[in-house]
Amino acid sequence: MSDAALSLSDSLVDRALRRVTGLWRDMADRVGGRDEAEDIAGQMQACLAARGGEVSARARAAKLAAAYRGFSEAERVNFLRVLAGFDADPKAVERAIAEWTQAADAPAKAAAKVRLRRALESPRVRLLTQFTAIPDGMKLLVDLRADLLRAVETDPLLEALEADLKTLLTSWFDLGFLELRRIDWNSPAALLEKLIRYEAVHRIESWDDLKNRLDSDRRCYAFFHPRMPEEPLIFVEIALMKGLAGSVQALLDPKAEVMDPNQADTAIFYSINNCQRGLDGIAFGNFLIKRVVEVLGQEFRGLKQFATLSPVPGFCRWLNAREEAGDAALLTPEELTAIRSAAGVPAETSPGAALQLLLSRKEWPPALAKVLEPVLVRLCARFVAVEAGRNPKRAADPVAHFHLSNGARVERINWRADTSAKGMRESAGLMVNYLYDPAFIEDNHEAYAGEGKRAMASAVRKLVKG
Amino acid sequence: MSDAALSLSDSLVDRALRRVTGLWRDMADRVGGRDEAEDIAGQMQACLAARGGEVSARARAAKLAAAYRGFSEAERVNFLRVLAGFDADPKAVERAIAEWTQAADAPAKAAAKVRLRRALESPRVRLLTQFTAIPDGMKLLVDLRADLLRAVETDPLLEALEADLKTLLTSWFDLGFLELRRIDWNSPAALLEKLIRYEAVHRIESWDDLKNRLDSDRRCYAFFHPRMPEEPLIFVEIALMKGLAGSVQALLDPKAEVMDPNQADTAIFYSINNCQRGLDGIAFGNFLIKRVVEVLGQEFRGLKQFATLSPVPGFCRWLNAREEAGDAALLTPEELTAIRSAAGVPAETSPGAALQLLLSRKEWPPALAKVLEPVLVRLCARFVAVEAGRNPKRAADPVAHFHLSNGARVERINWRADTSAKGMRESAGLMVNYLYDPAFIEDNHEAYAGEGKRAMASAVRKLVKG
Amino acid sequence: MSDAALSLSDSLVDRALRRVTGLWRDMADRVGGRDEAEDIAGQMQACLAARGGEVSARARAAKLAAAYRGFSEAERVNFLRVLAGFDADPKAVERAIAEWTQAADAPAKAAAKVRLRRALESPRVRLLTQFTAIPDGMKLLVDLRADLLRAVETDPLLEALEADLKTLLTSWFDLGFLELRRIDWNSPAALLEKLIRYEAVHRIESWDDLKNRLDSDRRCYAFFHPRMPEEPLIFVEIALMKGLAGSVQALLDPKAEVMDPNQADTAIFYSINNCQRGLDGIAFGNFLIKRVVEVLGQEFRGLKQFATLSPVPGFCRWLNAREEAGDAALLTPEELTAIRSAAGVPAETSPGAALQLLLSRKEWPPALAKVLEPVLVRLCARFVAVEAGRNPKRAADPVAHFHLSNGARVERINWRADTSAKGMRESAGLMVNYLYDPAFIEDNHEAYAGEGKRAMASAVRKLVKG
Amino acid sequence: MSDAALSLSDSLVDRALRRVTGLWRDMADRVGGRDEAEDIAGQMQACLAARGGEVSARARAAKLAAAYRGFSEAERVNFLRVLAGFDADPKAVERAIAEWTQAADAPAKAAAKVRLRRALESPRVRLLTQFTAIPDGMKLLVDLRADLLRAVETDPLLEALEADLKTLLTSWFDLGFLELRRIDWNSPAALLEKLIRYEAVHRIESWDDLKNRLDSDRRCYAFFHPRMPEEPLIFVEIALMKGLAGSVQALLDPKAEVMDPNQADTAIFYSINNCQRGLDGIAFGNFLIKRVVEVLGQEFRGLKQFATLSPVPGFCRWLNAREEAGDAALLTPEELTAIRSAAGVPAETSPGAALQLLLSRKEWPPALAKVLEPVLVRLCARFVAVEAGRNPKRAADPVAHFHLSNGARVERINWRADTSAKGMRESAGLMVNYLYDPAFIEDNHEAYAGEGKRAMASAVRKLVKG
Repeated sequence: MSDAALSLSDSLVDRALRRVTGLWRDMADRVGGRDEAEDIAGQMQACLAARGGEVSARARAAKLAAAYRGFSEAERVNFLRVLAGFDADPKAVERAIAEWTQAADAPAKAAAKVRLRRALESPRVRLLTQFTAIPDGMKLLVDLRADLLRAVETDPLLEALEADLKTLLTSWFDLGFLELRRIDWNSPAALLEKLIRYEAVHRIESWDDLKNRLDSDRRCYAFFHPRMPEEPLIFVEIALMKGLAGSVQALLDPKAEVMDPNQADTAIFYSINNCQRGLDGIAFGNFLIKRVVEVLGQEFRGLKQFATLSPVPGFCRWLNAREEAGDAALLTPEELTAIRSAAGVPAETSPGAALQLLLSRKEWPPALAKVLEPVLVRLCARFVAVEAGRNPKRAADPVAHFHLSNGARVERINWRADTSAKGMRESAGLMVNYLYDPAFIEDNHEAYAGEGKRAMASAVRKLVKG
Repeated sequence: MSDAALSLSDSLVDRALRRVTGLWRDMADRVGGRDEAEDIAGQMQACLAARGGEVSARARAAKLAAAYRGFSEAERVNFLRVLAGFDADPKAVERAIAEWTQAADAPAKAAAKVRLRRALESPRVRLLTQFTAIPDGMKLLVDLRADLLRAVETDPLLEALEADLKTLLTSWFDLGFLELRRIDWNSPAALLEKLIRYEAVHRIESWDDLKNRLDSDRRCYAFFHPRMPEEPLIFVEIALMKGLAGSVQALLDPKAEVMDPNQADTAIFYSINNCQRGLDGIAFGNFLIKRVVEVLGQEFRGLKQFATLSPVPGFCRWLNAREEAGDAALLTPEELTAIRSAAGVPAETSPGAALQLLLSRKEWPPALAKVLEPVLVRLCARFVAVEAGRNPKRAADPVAHFHLSNGARVERINWRADTSAKGMRESAGLMVNYLYDPAFIEDNHEAYAGEGKRAMASAVRKLVKG
Repeated sequence: MSDAALSLSDSLVDRALRRVTGLWRDMADRVGGRDEAEDIAGQMQACLAARGGEVSARARAAKLAAAYRGFSEAERVNFLRVLAGFDADPKAVERAIAEWTQAADAPAKAAAKVRLRRALESPRVRLLTQFTAIPDGMKLLVDLRADLLRAVETDPLLEALEADLKTLLTSWFDLGFLELRRIDWNSPAALLEKLIRYEAVHRIESWDDLKNRLDSDRRCYAFFHPRMPEEPLIFVEIALMKGLAGSVQALLDPKAEVMDPNQADTAIFYSINNCQRGLDGIAFGNFLIKRVVEVLGQEFRGLKQFATLSPVPGFCRWLNAREEAGDAALLTPEELTAIRSAAGVPAETSPGAALQLLLSRKEWPPALAKVLEPVLVRLCARFVAVEAGRNPKRAADPVAHFHLSNGARVERINWRADTSAKGMRESAGLMVNYLYDPAFIEDNHEAYAGEGKRAMASAVRKLVKG
Repeated sequence: MSDAALSLSDSLVDRALRRVTGLWRDMADRVGGRDEAEDIAGQMQACLAARGGEVSARARAAKLAAAYRGFSEAERVNFLRVLAGFDADPKAVERAIAEWTQAADAPAKAAAKVRLRRALESPRVRLLTQFTAIPDGMKLLVDLRADLLRAVETDPLLEALEADLKTLLTSWFDLGFLELRRIDWNSPAALLEKLIRYEAVHRIESWDDLKNRLDSDRRCYAFFHPRMPEEPLIFVEIALMKGLAGSVQALLDPKAEVMDPNQADTAIFYSINNCQRGLDGIAFGNFLIKRVVEVLGQEFRGLKQFATLSPVPGFCRWLNAREEAGDAALLTPEELTAIRSAAGVPAETSPGAALQLLLSRKEWPPALAKVLEPVLVRLCARFVAVEAGRNPKRAADPVAHFHLSNGARVERINWRADTSAKGMRESAGLMVNYLYDPAFIEDNHEAYAGEGKRAMASAVRKLVKG
């Protein structure tokens, strides 16, 4: 926040306040006490004017924060609208634009630009910044952005406030400020409880399930922010193994033998979870994987490869779309014949219909599974390694896009890798290993980010070419 | 930094780079190897384009940082000019301005404003941000701003870069991120050595002197930033006493008896030092004093008052200026007569000349001192509590302005309070106690910030009225 | 361990080893490899002789420790017998006794005593001490004593070894070395899991039950030893409330409202658990309660009383014994009549038989309960506050003895305070509050320890007198 | 301390107290208040009887400790005599001896031995143990032993108390409880100040000298005890270099270039200092060197050798003794002739007289130095590697004995290695490198500890043989 914002004139605040008073009144009526609401509005204004000095302003910010935490969703939206009203002064912006337009030479242009930037700074940024000094203030700001992201869908006037807050959070949550911490069975129970809550890829069923995931041949790492020390931002779960993992159920089996992690040659990243909705669009996953690759490589000299075991959430949806679009080339004639005969569907059934029929079944008899496996593996390889979305340089599958843009390559498609109800429904039980090879990460990233070229193992290349 | 900056096009970088190549070439010739310089320029460009992914970009930023640390001052200026060249694209700014100008309704205006802000973001901000992830990166940025503040005096084109960096540092060094730590004789020697270096108000003569200042009836507190854990940002030295301190020499006397701090009723803040030139204009002193007042109040229930023992650095300079301006009202006729007779100066000497003569003497005989004391104390009270600078609402003395704007009041003027050479030269040995009374801090601040009204003890009021 | 032990002659070790070789051979045969066993015996000997220097001896101790951990129970007993064999040299003891007997004057007597003490030191103490330097070595020693306490019941020759180890542990686990730590929901899960395992008074049913016991109106404190940082030695669970607690089920009800702990006037110690069998006879409970009283008193100024809610484990057993002994005075005629009529038992039933009959019932109809309550409360008061065991100065109930000897007083007997199966079976659902009043703890302790006088509230006194 | 000690009867305490009352009275009269002294005596008795419970006893122990700290030396000796009076009960010892003598079989003998040990335990051990729970209590006990070691020289009755305390301290300061910490320029100033005070081998001249010794190519490690966290027990200073160090002045030269420690192949231990007189006879030096060798070997893979640069404090004294004893074989005839001619001493001067004359000179002209060098180096090698003291298996020089018994070997004798006044006076400027080669430490130790065989480099062997 610049000096300009710090010496914010009271008149500007007053004007902003008049603009929002109406909204606030409404809210006040509903919360049943206009007095208290006006008091809060006054507090907000006083914060912005830093009345009584910056220290007092911070104390007021703490009161506003406490009020906000107690609000209902509707009241929060009103609070955010009031806050959004403390925007840059349009007259000042116009003056600065005029100055810029008239600037004759480079130095004048440069000076005008500095003033234009300053004129565009919103006073509300000051209040948001004041929240950081409150205990739990950073968490409040993150939660406030989560509220904003919901509210902005129906109220576009909140977009600028959301953009301001995102700019602040992007600056504060820069990689330089994050701490990588290992999480294990010696971590605080309150933190482990949050893992149970935040794990969305493969649900943690119980404390025993969690303990199994933190055993000596497992690792879990998370990023934390020093001002939110008890809240993980993102975490990744890893299994140390021999060779690539091909089944998440085998990997999570509590009865599976624990291996000596020093014997492992492969680290499998099998679950990555963002924990804070309010940090959407501020990317950590990329950094987390690479930092953890580094840390694990130092601890276990025997590790030779780092790979994921990832879901393919869009696979079945894409198959359906292809079928509905009547994609005749989806199956080769030989595949179609084999499926028809193994599944006993009439010869006249269209390829799409045949496939759809089969995917809707709960169980496949062994003979049918044997016929389906190569077909679905091939289609999945195509989906992940070839298929693009609206942007022709971007993988259709979001998980594939994430790992490819991080510089990983498509290493292997795994059959019957996730036999949970969700796994069968979304991806016919298939999962993908993405390989992070430190020697190629940069080139892979460049090729994908530049030309949309996707890296893949030769076996995968054969699948999509054959 | 917004998404826009993150997806910065290579062409923009190229253009920026061409603009700065000339400068860089010059530097390259001087550093004796154009190859290395071009390599550095290429690294800078690659950082900005996040080539090879953000993680690789950070590695390159580390190399640039190391290069910068090794540069001579001239090379650093060139580096900063190259960096300043990575500015916002003027065409994009013009387009965004046009959009804003044409926006018909409020929502369109709001959306245009968001885009205008984004167009004004400088790519160089990305590189500055990348430095934060380097060990010691935050210290580098602070030192880089110190370099900028020097360089900007002769090169106004660096102003915008300086403004960008100040905005970033203001955000990162917000109170919410600072840690208050007590410093005592158990603190790391490496840190204490820095106190010795940074103390500018009352020089620390030796380790023994320092140990004496950290004795059980003393306190020292500093603000630290989590990303610069070994560098104090600002520190304050405090003596716990009975009653107000009236002499800094008595206070720093190593032979003075140590008192039981639990018997103290007064905390004297006798030295406040900013340690980082690169954080100039980002204010901590205000917060530091108030946080320390809180902390001390909790530890020592017997503390009844919190005050400073502060220098009056501008006093003698102001006296001289008054004399030179022929201020006839500086002395009352009685004062003038008394001084003339005590000092033995001819009757025709002008008041100014008489005073000047006396102040230039090294010693005053007791009789003369007795005459001078009430005169100088009165004038000092006037200087601190009445005299204004160019801004009529602002105290002429910078130390007075600092404490008054924090909400303190002028409590007492102390005769022979600093008899060091510097103290005699700058303020005729006078020092001031500013009192921080928590009950009045807010009102005092408001009155001073609003109308320029200065708070003072009734005894001081009498001095300036009499 | 004295210098004497440190310069232990090899011949002594050899002799000791010969004495134990037979035992060891047996074990070797059973573990299926005499070589390995001899190797271990050799290692033990080498440790004791500090062959290759003390540092090497420590390395050997680590191997012995690892071997011990892998042993079956029978092998452990043999290991302990081997170790017990490394006893003081009887000849040296006899010589020292002779010297003492012949000592003519005080100085000679004193010197002889020092030498006699030294002669009695057992070489095995050196090996036990060497274990402390191993990671987890202290835990090994504690577990080793637990093994010894079991083994000594059938093998009295191990008694001296057990006494040596107890002396060592008593010295190392002296209060001066213990750390009091608060345990809450932010404590490591691995530690909380141990609470679940070690809680023996009121079983912890689940992680949810545990979380409920660590809520904001609860406290849990434990003693730890710096060399066993992950193992609680003893822990106490506390509820902060208004007034005395009268029902453990109410206290542990997860649906009970959480109170603001700052409103509490009473701290109830409702469960104290020793965690390490190997520290039996080394008392911490007394210190723990008093330290926690101090800590809580400082945190919550509103706390007015500190009391337990304690089981009466011996109550029903004592009642049965009284009945079996035909104690005619157990019930007053009025009580007997009332019970007979309420319970519908024939008039000729003896008091003992009547009571036994009733206690064996699972449920008491309200009318009967109303009759039983005063009777059982009175008898319980008598049991706790009057009845003695074999030692006439010592309370018959071990829990009563523990709290009385700590200086607490019997405050209140609670009806239907523990309605669990165990609570009904052992104490007819009754529980006792023992009150720790800091002002009287010393006197109460002295009176009980000296004359066996028990402190009690006047209401309890009335019960036992009436 | 056993249960027996814990249930110590009051009568025993009373008897002990009567025995010491006289002493105490004397002291009381001198401290000017018999009341206070009796109060202290009473407190001591109350501690021992654990009156009011163990917790209250601890509080009393704290008072006694505070009293002790305030005592003069004479008063401390009286305090120690009072304490020594709380000895084992002679009657109980006699009874236990009788029981042992009469014990007929092994189990009876074993049981009698346990009881005899118990009877010999001194009540004073309880008070010493109670001190551990006081803040700084462990330091008090260590200082108390330092007092005892002084006092025992003139008062043999304190010997048994000293032995008791040594037994306790040996148990508490076992290696298993010590923490190795690195000390560097980031360590607390209060700790570094202690290094300055405790360094006795090569005096630290100033904070700058100290900082130079903690530079990046230096290391300093110390052992600490968890209950005395601010007091180093022993510390070692190390220089990382290329090759063996041959001059301590070169090594401590503040102007010497700092080397990259990763380039070092040799670690030179150039100063080892015990810090606590009260821990005399409880050995840490051996462990410290070996632990540090391990730690350095892990940090710097390039380190190939670990050696000391050690003084030879007894060399000149031994030379003088040899001369006085008229050792004709001290110099060869050739050496004698060469010295005579270089130094210009008359031909008739005896070898001893010639040498003595030369050693008393402050400077040697180059020609003389050239003649002296091989002679003194040879003699020093003989002194260190051959000469024995009263015990024929033990090196005459205490430093040589320390390193040889730790398993080091005599590696090199260095000419003009310590040219300080002390170095010239004690050892004619010579110093010795002792080499710690992990592969031979055990064998060297065994050979020296067993047969008194000293390990040495072949060059040294040649010197002592030639």
